[in-house]
Amino acid sequence: MIKLKEIMDNVRDRAPLVHNITNYVTVNDCANILLACGASPIMSDDEGDVEDITSICGGLNINIGTLNKNTIPSMFLAGRRSNELGHPVLLDPVGAGASRLRTETASALIKELKLAVIRGNISEIKALYGGSSTTRGVDADAADQVNDSNIDSVISFASAFSKDTGAVVAITGATDIITDGEKVCCIKNGDPMMSRVTGTGCMLSAMTAAFVVADPDRCFESVCAATIAMGLAGEVARSRLSEQDGNSTYRNYLIDAVCNMSGDQLEKGARYEIR
Amino acid sequence: MIKLKEIMDNVRDRAPLVHNITNYVTVNDCANILLACGASPIMSDDEGDVEDITSICGGLNINIGTLNKNTIPSMFLAGRRSNELGHPVLLDPVGAGASRLRTETASALIKELKLAVIRGNISEIKALYGGSSTTRGVDADAADQVNDSNIDSVISFASAFSKDTGAVVAITGATDIITDGEKVCCIKNGDPMMSRVTGTGCMLSAMTAAFVVADPDRCFESVCAATIAMGLAGEVARSRLSEQDGNSTYRNYLIDAVCNMSGDQLEKGARYEIR
Amino acid sequence: MIKLKEIMDNVRDRAPLVHNITNYVTVNDCANILLACGASPIMSDDEGDVEDITSICGGLNINIGTLNKNTIPSMFLAGRRSNELGHPVLLDPVGAGASRLRTETASALIKELKLAVIRGNISEIKALYGGSSTTRGVDADAADQVNDSNIDSVISFASAFSKDTGAVVAITGATDIITDGEKVCCIKNGDPMMSRVTGTGCMLSAMTAAFVVADPDRCFESVCAATIAMGLAGEVARSRLSEQDGNSTYRNYLIDAVCNMSGDQLEKGARYEIR
Repeated sequence: MIKLKEIMDNVRDRAPLVHNITNYVTVNDCANILLACGASPIMSDDEGDVEDITSICGGLNINIGTLNKNTIPSMFLAGRRSNELGHPVLLDPVGAGASRLRTETASALIKELKLAVIRGNISEIKALYGGSSTTRGVDADAADQVNDSNIDSVISFASAFSKDTGAVVAITGATDIITDGEKVCCIKNGDPMMSRVTGTGCMLSAMTAAFVVADPDRCFESVCAATIAMGLAGEVARSRLSEQDGNSTYRNYLIDAVCNMSGDQLEKGARYEIR
Repeated sequence: MIKLKEIMDNVRDRAPLVHNITNYVTVNDCANILLACGASPIMSDDEGDVEDITSICGGLNINIGTLNKNTIPSMFLAGRRSNELGHPVLLDPVGAGASRLRTETASALIKELKLAVIRGNISEIKALYGGSSTTRGVDADAADQVNDSNIDSVISFASAFSKDTGAVVAITGATDIITDGEKVCCIKNGDPMMSRVTGTGCMLSAMTAAFVVADPDRCFESVCAATIAMGLAGEVARSRLSEQDGNSTYRNYLIDAVCNMSGDQLEKGARYEIR
Repeated sequence: MIKLKEIMDNVRDRAPLVHNITNYVTVNDCANILLACGASPIMSDDEGDVEDITSICGGLNINIGTLNKNTIPSMFLAGRRSNELGHPVLLDPVGAGASRLRTETASALIKELKLAVIRGNISEIKALYGGSSTTRGVDADAADQVNDSNIDSVISFASAFSKDTGAVVAITGATDIITDGEKVCCIKNGDPMMSRVTGTGCMLSAMTAAFVVADPDRCFESVCAATIAMGLAGEVARSRLSEQDGNSTYRNYLIDAVCNMSGDQLEKGARYEIR
């Protein structure tokens, strides 16, 4: 069993400072979910700024959702500096497979940096390992969806990717699969409404970085705990929706649910299995 | 009569993928309203990324709200590629008339690209056609407001602009005027609170692009349907406001209303006339 | 006594147009709080655009939260143009002390521009004047917090900084201290939840710029009024929270509270003293 309460309480106690180089679409929600879980966000993406900023933080969240020629070098600079300092670095390869620039940038980051965590949807991860993905922009392609009939092959593939990179690999979707190459966690928390809100993946990446910074020695367990917390928040948010509420109110309730989530609540609501 | 239900149902069935090169002020709301109406958003604005991204999408929404020297070339690149692929391209000339860069960029995009739709407020459209606009930043100037006494001249002007450009022209405000150079639709849906929220115009442009991508053969009708849907959402949102609610809650309710809007509701709530 | 009602009513009557060069994290909330208080926002940060835009506005809000090599020159260009036009310019030195680029950029802006207002947290202001700050990223460091035992020295320091720069200095936190070098205002409005939302400082800076633009001859009083209004909005927002609401709903209620705030309400709820 993962010590979910202990891990969650750690985040709130240690208030990790997380450096984010992220996209401008969902950045506000990423900042607010970091504050909601007890962490502190800093966003900085200029080449002249990122090394100083990452040095005063505990870890780095790199999200390529709106990468550009100015921010790509910053991702490498901040990543290398974080590696030198021993800070955990998370990569969210948003849209890998949807363009050469995204696929190549994510691949180069994986090659050059020591990553603690790689978190994406199944299509993004397949684009980066094996190269046989279809894509639907920044969303997972239906053809790639994880289900009972292909889950074993997805787990094998994720484990191999994890062993190759040394990173905990988190493939999130209706079922989340997280592996450090040895242990595997399959998570069933979550709600379909989460796919109607932009940035649930980005928010999870930011929060995952915070959990790992707060507890770097339990990286795999921390990634699992953050993913369970996000899924459970999605369930709590769904339970609050009135008939007239839609995806915008849902987004607020999602962040609210993280803000109010206790370690006990997380343990009670978690639905996962370790294989 | 416009087949509003059919058009709205089409969007939800076809789930169009829309490439947005847009401003960082309202981008999150644009993404969420696209998801609310059944579409999928992708944001990408780097010269090295936009051609690949626009190629996998069904259409392109160009919004110059925070244009800069890096994103302007991307607008042309993505626009040309979309034209080659026969994808509909929408232009939202935010702040045209407020600066030379905005006016000139919008004019150059209109000249160089085949646009399916140009959507702006009356001051922006006047700045681009005729050159005799006053401006109040990104909002329409009071002196330009469409009213009973000037509506006929605004319609003539919009029709001429549409014939010149080949684009459906949508001038939105208290009364929305949409024309393809022949048909004209005047829409009365909407609520004054919409002008207290940043980005209602940007959101409408994004949603309009989605409607046109889903039904490119009925471009004029799709633009009308999206505009009616946005105005009706503004009315629904208003009806939900409690005494303590203000423009931020209103924004959420606006997106929520699109999320929950059915084709039947749209037909029932529509207030427009075709001239 | 500060004529709070008069100042607030002025903002709503005069509807000042504010040019913002600001970060992409909190920019949407800044735009919406400007609309909430009765002002109009424009965001523009390209070197080729900022001079035209600032010329049609009444004032300029410079926020260095995600500064970069493209936007830094724009801050100087727009600032100089605003100075030439006699427009009030506000600086929010987000993260000064957290990186050399931030500290140096803020210092250079202070040196080169005539600033009407400098607003930051205690750590940022100390980093810019005296150079002996600790820092916790974009948040104030605990070691820097203003309390009963150090408030007199903070006031002396703020007054000296104000005299040196000619700007009204606003140091905000649990107790806000505002001074024009002679008068000092200590404000007790606010709520701890404000620190759980990203951008409350940025929002206050934007709103402060609007208040000063609306009433440039009462700069000190306008800064006080905006700060009191923000704190009071934080209290109103807190009073609306249900048990399941968290920081995201709180953000909405905060902006809503500004949207609905009357001059009378502001006078009644204000908790401050002039020294």
